[in-house]
Amino acid sequence: MKQNSKVIPFLWKEGRVRLLDQTRLPNEVVYVDCRRARDVWLAIRKLKVRGAPLLGIAAALGFWLGFKSLRGGRGDDLIREARRLRAYLVSSRPTAVNVAWALRQMEEVVVHNAHLSKDRVLAALEKKIKEIIDDDVRMCLRMGEHGAQLVRDGARLLTVCNAGGLATSGGGTALSVFYRAQKDGKKIWVTACETRPLLQGARLTAWELAQAKIDVTLICDNMAADLMRRRAVDAVFVGADRIAANGDFANKIGTYMLAVCARHHGIPFYCVAPFSTFDMSLSDGRAIPIEERDPAEVTSLYFRRPIAPPSARVFNPAFDVTPHALVTAIITEKGVIRPPFGKNIRSLYGSGAGKNKRDRAR
Amino acid sequence: MKQNSKVIPFLWKEGRVRLLDQTRLPNEVVYVDCRRARDVWLAIRKLKVRGAPLLGIAAALGFWLGFKSLRGGRGDDLIREARRLRAYLVSSRPTAVNVAWALRQMEEVVVHNAHLSKDRVLAALEKKIKEIIDDDVRMCLRMGEHGAQLVRDGARLLTVCNAGGLATSGGGTALSVFYRAQKDGKKIWVTACETRPLLQGARLTAWELAQAKIDVTLICDNMAADLMRRRAVDAVFVGADRIAANGDFANKIGTYMLAVCARHHGIPFYCVAPFSTFDMSLSDGRAIPIEERDPAEVTSLYFRRPIAPPSARVFNPAFDVTPHALVTAIITEKGVIRPPFGKNIRSLYGSGAGKNKRDRAR
Repeated sequence: MKQNSKVIPFLWKEGRVRLLDQTRLPNEVVYVDCRRARDVWLAIRKLKVRGAPLLGIAAALGFWLGFKSLRGGRGDDLIREARRLRAYLVSSRPTAVNVAWALRQMEEVVVHNAHLSKDRVLAALEKKIKEIIDDDVRMCLRMGEHGAQLVRDGARLLTVCNAGGLATSGGGTALSVFYRAQKDGKKIWVTACETRPLLQGARLTAWELAQAKIDVTLICDNMAADLMRRRAVDAVFVGADRIAANGDFANKIGTYMLAVCARHHGIPFYCVAPFSTFDMSLSDGRAIPIEERDPAEVTSLYFRRPIAPPSARVFNPAFDVTPHALVTAIITEKGVIRPPFGKNIRSLYGSGAGKNKRDRAR
Repeated sequence: MKQNSKVIPFLWKEGRVRLLDQTRLPNEVVYVDCRRARDVWLAIRKLKVRGAPLLGIAAALGFWLGFKSLRGGRGDDLIREARRLRAYLVSSRPTAVNVAWALRQMEEVVVHNAHLSKDRVLAALEKKIKEIIDDDVRMCLRMGEHGAQLVRDGARLLTVCNAGGLATSGGGTALSVFYRAQKDGKKIWVTACETRPLLQGARLTAWELAQAKIDVTLICDNMAADLMRRRAVDAVFVGADRIAANGDFANKIGTYMLAVCARHHGIPFYCVAPFSTFDMSLSDGRAIPIEERDPAEVTSLYFRRPIAPPSARVFNPAFDVTPHALVTAIITEKGVIRPPFGKNIRSLYGSGAGKNKRDRAR
């Protein structure tokens, strides 16, 4: 089921759950052994697990661990325990949409099966978790297929942040396109922008692509325009955190800069995201709320050595909004959407995809 | 003579030389006490002193310290010592054009006055150093005057790297414009781009402007485009390392990205540099050599904690080239040059300025 990414962000077998500690990448590959719901709660709270789909899966596995350790019981007892577990695990990262979404699925499974024995409820939970994982893997594969058709042999591709296999159970969003192109036998060269302030591009994407034997070069974010001027970029592929009904989309800060520079140099700019990323209640990108984060992310290097005056005022938005006019196409699991985006998104949306809202927190 | 920058990168009085240790900014303001030429040599070698004009002045002061400590002598003895001192101090940073330039001036003073006593030669050296400093201060003041005419009261200005008082004996190039606008009673808001990989914007510019009580906000380089989209930038002012005869110019990496984004948003983009920065032997920017620097600057944060896989390939150009077509005007000590740049640079160049080539190393 796994795409040809070599990254395994979680392991679930023989009754054990192990989560890759992403805060220790790229220096160490260490898995956190989770035996109780509390172990998963801690891993999420301490940001060892990140990426919208993966957060949902980790929370579901935490629920499963917690449920497994119950002494037995049936009916209302199980339902009460399920409520408690859900509330507890949601508190690990209350703003993560996928965590809440996955735990709601878990609780519903318990409620539906509460008349059965604990072991049979546990089996139903396992079935549901496998479904979530398989859905995720399938979605990544589809995005990869559609996107890879836009990648020629020998292409030089640029990406930002980590829209990859570290964030999902599959190959990711933007990176699934690269994995598929590679699998199809195309030679590609990838440039990863380091993605200040938290350096997901340097720490995660450069590492993940190297693991998958994809040729990757790391740059500082401010070098991308110069690379484009040197004609060393054929296309840009980025993920998305939320897409409005007209195709405007929010993604990691720095995405908009890449879109402007790509347009200036006549380079195609692609957004890759599952249909669940669309928020059809937003007519355009102006309504997307942008979180401003801790100034210390900017003023101290990875929260350690200070690199700016302690008194420095800082502007630190986590995301920016790229207007659809700068986007060449949006690649989803249902196909490639081209302008006019408003009309084309509506017609694909109407065809049944993307009814549940998730995959937003990073 | 000093502009209203509160930054004092060197002190020279009562026979003592003290150099601000810029590697310890912004955490500590520490001066290195220099009593011998060797102390200055070390300060330059260890990058405690940086900035093209300042490097020249520091080297000249090192020469002066070395000459002062001689036991006496006259004629050929003094000339021999001068040669030795010059060769020694040039070796502190052999690629810095200004270091070599200033030391040549020092040696010439000794050669011209070698028939006099050591004390009188020393006095001539002091006179020459004061001239260099005064020229530098005057040039900064003039650039500030010309540039400030382009800044309205209430303007929101953006800059990159450190083109400021920390690099010169005056108020700098781009920053001298801000200091002059402030002195003229205009309220300005400045955004400093942090300037990866070496973070001169965060470490130096944010600190320097705060010292001068100019309102400054620090951002990561990839946030500049988003600020422009929010209409929070009225103009961009940057320095230059070398300017070709057609107005194309090289400056710190990231400058070109700012120029592209400023053009996309219809924001004026100004380059501020003394006439000595023009290299009329280059017809356009393609001929400007671009230094590629140590990958470790990108893969480890300020050469400490690794932030990328050790095996990561890195592209790390120190500078980029901004084509003149993206430049609104070039501000020099002789006035503001507007398009057509080729013609207008030639006519100002012909009028006698910029015959000596220096101010290039950073």
